[in-house]
Amino acid sequence: MSNWLDEVKWDDKGLVTAIAQDARTQRVLMVAWMNREALQLTADTGIAHYWSRSRQKLWKKGEESGHLQTVQALRLDCDGDVIVMQIEQAGGIACHTGRESCLYRQLIDGEWVAVDPVLKDPAAIYSH
Amino acid sequence: MSNWLDEVKWDDKGLVTAIAQDARTQRVLMVAWMNREALQLTADTGIAHYWSRSRQKLWKKGEESGHLQTVQALRLDCDGDVIVMQIEQAGGIACHTGRESCLYRQLIDGEWVAVDPVLKDPAAIYSH
Repeated sequence: MSNWLDEVKWDDKGLVTAIAQDARTQRVLMVAWMNREALQLTADTGIAHYWSRSRQKLWKKGEESGHLQTVQALRLDCDGDVIVMQIEQAGGIACHTGRESCLYRQLIDGEWVAVDPVLKDPAAIYSH
Repeated sequence: MSNWLDEVKWDDKGLVTAIAQDARTQRVLMVAWMNREALQLTADTGIAHYWSRSRQKLWKKGEESGHLQTVQALRLDCDGDVIVMQIEQAGGIACHTGRESCLYRQLIDGEWVAVDPVLKDPAAIYSH
């Protein structure tokens, strides 16, 4: 039986690149990795799950911070090795630095400059 | 001397994930890889360059198709392992299938469904 998960081209570590994009503004909020279980859970629950490479474990985004991502749509690219999710970001903060997006550094005159504000102190986000 | 390229966290193959996003609509058009030379060239020329993993060579996007990508801004994520580019897509076609975006398949009722139209026959794109 064919399965949509089999059409994903998992890399040699069993992972696929996953991009979370704000469904309203289309801003890219974060980019991480999913294994098969994470993608299955994301589709089944409608809440974004990733595979944490640093912690080597399944990671329900927002499990500590409360900044869950509700998934409205999933797309796969032509090569099958990239997932893009249209999401609604709880708290309006995707980045562990307390910013809306993890893409907060812009290349300006040969330097990466943090151009977006910290909306909430990370210490406050992860204190509970 | 510090260099902005040294702040990028290159993976074990010397690559970083690069996302091309339409500067006007914010649609994600494609996702590929860059090595140090590709990123340097992208910044220096303002035209997106990638590293083709399948061909194992530097790849100036649009060199065959004419579908060049003019880069308006470059961003780096908090981990330093993802680049997002704001681009203008020549011809309005980023995908080798002749579609606007490589992300043309959406998960609908457990199947990846091609929901975007082919704008130009790939045979016509790559014939010259």
